[in-house]
Amino acid sequence: MGIAHVFAVVLAGGRGERFWPLSTEACPKAFLRLVGRQSLLQATVDRARLLLPWTRILVAVGRAHAGLVRQQLPELPDANLLLEPFGRDTAAAIGLASLQLERLDPEAVMAVLPADHHVPDADAFAASLRQAFAVLESGPAWVVTIGIRPTRPETGYGYLECGDPLPDLPGASHVRRFLEKPDLKAAEQLLRDGRHYWNSGIFLWRRTTIQGLLARFLPEIWAGLCRIREGWGIEDVLIREFAAFRKLSVDYGVLERMDGSLAMVRGDFAWDDLGSWDALARVLPARQDGNVIIGEVEPVNTSGSVIISTGQRVATVGLSDMIVVASQDGVLVCPKGRSQEVRQFAGETR
Amino acid sequence: MGIAHVFAVVLAGGRGERFWPLSTEACPKAFLRLVGRQSLLQATVDRARLLLPWTRILVAVGRAHAGLVRQQLPELPDANLLLEPFGRDTAAAIGLASLQLERLDPEAVMAVLPADHHVPDADAFAASLRQAFAVLESGPAWVVTIGIRPTRPETGYGYLECGDPLPDLPGASHVRRFLEKPDLKAAEQLLRDGRHYWNSGIFLWRRTTIQGLLARFLPEIWAGLCRIREGWGIEDVLIREFAAFRKLSVDYGVLERMDGSLAMVRGDFAWDDLGSWDALARVLPARQDGNVIIGEVEPVNTSGSVIISTGQRVATVGLSDMIVVASQDGVLVCPKGRSQEVRQFAGETR
Repeated sequence: MGIAHVFAVVLAGGRGERFWPLSTEACPKAFLRLVGRQSLLQATVDRARLLLPWTRILVAVGRAHAGLVRQQLPELPDANLLLEPFGRDTAAAIGLASLQLERLDPEAVMAVLPADHHVPDADAFAASLRQAFAVLESGPAWVVTIGIRPTRPETGYGYLECGDPLPDLPGASHVRRFLEKPDLKAAEQLLRDGRHYWNSGIFLWRRTTIQGLLARFLPEIWAGLCRIREGWGIEDVLIREFAAFRKLSVDYGVLERMDGSLAMVRGDFAWDDLGSWDALARVLPARQDGNVIIGEVEPVNTSGSVIISTGQRVATVGLSDMIVVASQDGVLVCPKGRSQEVRQFAGETR
Repeated sequence: MGIAHVFAVVLAGGRGERFWPLSTEACPKAFLRLVGRQSLLQATVDRARLLLPWTRILVAVGRAHAGLVRQQLPELPDANLLLEPFGRDTAAAIGLASLQLERLDPEAVMAVLPADHHVPDADAFAASLRQAFAVLESGPAWVVTIGIRPTRPETGYGYLECGDPLPDLPGASHVRRFLEKPDLKAAEQLLRDGRHYWNSGIFLWRRTTIQGLLARFLPEIWAGLCRIREGWGIEDVLIREFAAFRKLSVDYGVLERMDGSLAMVRGDFAWDDLGSWDALARVLPARQDGNVIIGEVEPVNTSGSVIISTGQRVATVGLSDMIVVASQDGVLVCPKGRSQEVRQFAGETR
């Protein structure tokens, strides 16, 4: 098979509520330039572009953000922009993408790439994807995920338990089970035992495989997708069916209910899903005073803090290990380690 | 004399740099509604109005803020608005006011009222002013100041040492000496000994008295004022002389160098010069969670903090005893007790 039939499906429908007040309804997390000069979406597509031409990169996004995608990815073909009428999480988004792939290439292989990850070493990432393609070539019904070797006892990620290696497929193993986000003690154990990997949310499968799994585990969603397929291009149908879909991730809805044919590639590169402002503190370089500073910020007697402004001046005195973020939509102030609680504010953005 | 010749001179030329980012060049502290629905200036004038008609209230202000004064005090007669071409501190402002009083009423008595104090009990304040007027009636050359009975070992104020009582003048005493801002240990001693009072910066004297004192202690400034008097109404003269004035407070330049004729009225009412955000925390009522909240603020697990927004939403998580202030000009974050250091940011407002 090689990579002739591989398509990347970049999922950019998430809101990134924990990055309030930068991430907003108008400009969600994937479109922000949180690290470096590119948005997370642009960086994700660049990584895919190491292996794939533009014609085989699809981006699934809420319809309100079509303009942002066109602005940030002007080379993306129009037919490759999948607009979700409502956010219904990854099962519905992936199902919709499978329908479009079916039209573009019946033999399509789908690499699902969340648009909001931080992966500094794009080459190592591409090498892992190639290993995953090799697994898919070896047998028709594999579901392959990329597990990331953990570097800290992270409680914010799900984990994969790595099973027996797949013969003749370097870097690839069976997945024994999925683990929900652990508590700190459990996470420390998982880190020590060497058998557990972070669930990156990157999945690869044939178009036919995922459609079969959706039909088996999520028959209601699949029935809706079939009606969308029959009425392809009819706006009303798409809207009606999406409105009725449950919000469900493909992890919960499909993968955790599978009982075999689950493989993983052991990724050994730096990876972060940038789940919160604390994560950003981890990946951005600090200045000599230990602060991560973006924008017009004056930190006085301030250390170990993340201070970001997209507009106004921000002045701090006597802070340590704090997060301060100011945008035109709001101001957030919280100590490091508490930024998971930011999500609650995002809903009420004006 | 009664109060027939008394004029209030409200000094509103200060910048209030420690109230950045609310207090700015465009809208200094005295014009802010920091406490209640009135600006500090409006509240100051209201207190004076308990005793005096509008015709005998003068407001001295930087010329950039004439519009703000007219907006906040529409009843103020035009001739009672004194515009300082540059901020030159209180000696020059009071000297300028004395020239205008000379024109309005040669026998004028001047009550100097800083525009940015917080005095909740206006009646008690007025009673103290009346006691001061009585001192001025008793002898022509008195300088009378109002001392405030201290309620805490405040290191941010200057103090007056109270001397012998003035016979037949209830509440009035000689001033033995002025004390600069003390350190904490000294302030605790001053609080205990009962002889020391806060220097409120409220002064009363005859127009002739202060002019004599300026001529004696600040002959250069007085010479400039005399040239302004000769060229009264000529803009160029006023600008040239003000440009040449030293920045000097009447406290340092005159009062602390006097050797007698200094009286004080012992004020026993709540008074605060609102020198910083910490002061505001003292005078504003806290909610049940111990926070002082103004504007669109969402404090989560936050206690003992002052959080103010004039525009954007401000969300805080897990703060205690912090000061957070957001305006269109900037965002300030600092722990309580550090707000004296805010002054440094004010200079660079855009």
